[in-house]
Amino acid sequence: MRAVGVIVEYNPFHNGHAYHLQVAKGTAEADLVVAVMSGNFLQRGEPALVSKWYRTKMALLNGVDIVLELPYQFATQKAETFANGAVSILDAIGCHSLCFGSESGDISSFSQTVDYLDKHKDQFDENIKMNIKTGVSFPKALSLSFQSLSSPENLVSLDKPNNILGFHYVKAIKHQKSTMIPLTVKRKNADYHDEHFATETIASATSIRKALFASKENNSSIKQYVPDATDRLLREYLDDYGNFHEWENYWSYLRFRLLHCSVEELREIYEVEEGIEHRLIAAALDAANFNEFMQKIKTKRYTWTRLQRICLHILTNTKKAEMKSTIERASYLRLLGMTGNGKEYLNKYKSQFTLPLISKLSAYKENGIYLDIKASRIYSFGLRNQARDRLLNQEFKQPPIFIK
Amino acid sequence: MRAVGVIVEYNPFHNGHAYHLQVAKGTAEADLVVAVMSGNFLQRGEPALVSKWYRTKMALLNGVDIVLELPYQFATQKAETFANGAVSILDAIGCHSLCFGSESGDISSFSQTVDYLDKHKDQFDENIKMNIKTGVSFPKALSLSFQSLSSPENLVSLDKPNNILGFHYVKAIKHQKSTMIPLTVKRKNADYHDEHFATETIASATSIRKALFASKENNSSIKQYVPDATDRLLREYLDDYGNFHEWENYWSYLRFRLLHCSVEELREIYEVEEGIEHRLIAAALDAANFNEFMQKIKTKRYTWTRLQRICLHILTNTKKAEMKSTIERASYLRLLGMTGNGKEYLNKYKSQFTLPLISKLSAYKENGIYLDIKASRIYSFGLRNQARDRLLNQEFKQPPIFIK
Repeated sequence: MRAVGVIVEYNPFHNGHAYHLQVAKGTAEADLVVAVMSGNFLQRGEPALVSKWYRTKMALLNGVDIVLELPYQFATQKAETFANGAVSILDAIGCHSLCFGSESGDISSFSQTVDYLDKHKDQFDENIKMNIKTGVSFPKALSLSFQSLSSPENLVSLDKPNNILGFHYVKAIKHQKSTMIPLTVKRKNADYHDEHFATETIASATSIRKALFASKENNSSIKQYVPDATDRLLREYLDDYGNFHEWENYWSYLRFRLLHCSVEELREIYEVEEGIEHRLIAAALDAANFNEFMQKIKTKRYTWTRLQRICLHILTNTKKAEMKSTIERASYLRLLGMTGNGKEYLNKYKSQFTLPLISKLSAYKENGIYLDIKASRIYSFGLRNQARDRLLNQEFKQPPIFIK
Repeated sequence: MRAVGVIVEYNPFHNGHAYHLQVAKGTAEADLVVAVMSGNFLQRGEPALVSKWYRTKMALLNGVDIVLELPYQFATQKAETFANGAVSILDAIGCHSLCFGSESGDISSFSQTVDYLDKHKDQFDENIKMNIKTGVSFPKALSLSFQSLSSPENLVSLDKPNNILGFHYVKAIKHQKSTMIPLTVKRKNADYHDEHFATETIASATSIRKALFASKENNSSIKQYVPDATDRLLREYLDDYGNFHEWENYWSYLRFRLLHCSVEELREIYEVEEGIEHRLIAAALDAANFNEFMQKIKTKRYTWTRLQRICLHILTNTKKAEMKSTIERASYLRLLGMTGNGKEYLNKYKSQFTLPLISKLSAYKENGIYLDIKASRIYSFGLRNQARDRLLNQEFKQPPIFIK
């Protein structure tokens, strides 16, 4: 059985994702799709709208056969680390190829860019450093450095978010000496950051979330942009748990953290650097909500995403020491769900997987997975009372979701 | 001017307290009363009903002339440490005498008990240790050891809570070589732990709080047991801040702490000993509220009070290292409020005080006071949104309260 891998957040699953899966499966001539999906917290340092279990159901009902969790230690990181973790997982489960969406759509330009930048690494890194010294953020420095390259080759434009991710996937495949074949699908119509609906059926996840929160969590306005299963599961989540998750729900806990930790303790938290702890504490005293807090701490040097990630690690009490340990490759495959087809694949090839497959959490004790368990516990604090209790204990009780 | 000192919590100020003040002033032939009062968290490991500022107003409107804060590092401790801190403060501000309420009412028996137990210290300590080995709590072991003494002298009965405190006050006076004269007033009618109203005008603070919470924070039921000023200030607090403070308001934050800390981190917290951290984490996963949580962790060895203090130190992130440093004596006098009479005393004798007098928080940076600042911040999390914001920032903005 030939498996194609995809790297996703599904926050929530929409028609653009469905299109991507269809093309991925066709292009790769695959029998099944394996998705590695961020858990409850995402790359932009945000809580997912609904739990990883609900997002797993959306995936399985819409064409994915196996869902594995991208561990917290990769899911909440900059593109390079995120990509390293995700690629190592898809490789370990034996995917034949990896297919990602990009603004470019031209796979050869990704490979050429990886090769070119490997060759000119020192000069490129030097360039980035110089740009950072001018006070801009890391992504901005990267983009500027890239633009200043004069290459005769066919390079992919690294100022688009999905191109950047794709670049890191292809680079990780090369550096990890994976045999996976990289493939890309040109994204249809919707830019990652779009806040407005672009076409009649395809919209970015950002605009869908915005519409959901704007309409006070009534999701009729997004119906045309998502498959029926997503629509139904979002409604079900509201019925079951009372609200969607957003940073504002966690604000009082973040604030509590900032006001009971010493500056020394904050400095132990992953990504807290350069004295930003003082800024955070001062802002926490004054800000009435998360958005106000973010406005207060925002500077040119820090992107919104980087600040949210810092806040997330503070919220979850994630230390530098905990994140540094296994940063290159994942060390386990956490199974969140599968279809009948997925189950067949797992049974057939399990013995060849190069990492342990975890379907029962209580049976596994590895250091990194403690971060996932903790993240799930903290995630439940975005819900009220009884809903919180239920979600809090699901992490250990929930077997992998099986559909069909 | 002659000052008599009292050691109080005023949670809230009631008629029994008014009676005590009146007798204290008379017996001591004093011109004014200095109260050292616990801040926002109390000896039983609980949040005070209303903030220290409101309790300071109650005190000043009912006969106290100067209110000093008993720092967190003494206020939330067992009787011996609590007494050491309080006595050192009253001594430093030049009180002529210290007057406490007790079940006994006979001051000579306190002095004789202190002398007797100093003389037989080794034997008594040995006795306590042996009793603890049978699995009982520390207070129970103390009481049993005391009962087993056969002394010809006039000893005070150390199985009553106010006698125990009084014993430690008198002991602290002796050991700190203070010149303060100890005085005691026999408590009128209400036992400390009484949950029911005992007479028509005197009731324990415990029963008053119980009535307040039972009547859904409508305080008409307690009117006959408290001075008018208390009644008015309690109503005002509800209007200003929305609710009284109780452990249940902090439950989600305590639970959050227990679920995002590692066991190693919990072990660094003051009073977390003997592996209780595992018990606490397990109970936090299951308990829906604070009372349920306490029922789950209760054992014969731990009193309710000791467990609440452990929870409090976890909530406020107070470490062993922070509490061990200045445990014998206070190192500052934090002025919470004064009357005209009190002000006159302060002006007249300020130069003779043996500890720095702090009336403006921002001007003072001493290690221990950070614990008070942090405690006040955490205390504000027992209120909702805007009320919380206001209380949170009061700690630095509020000058000492001046009445008359």
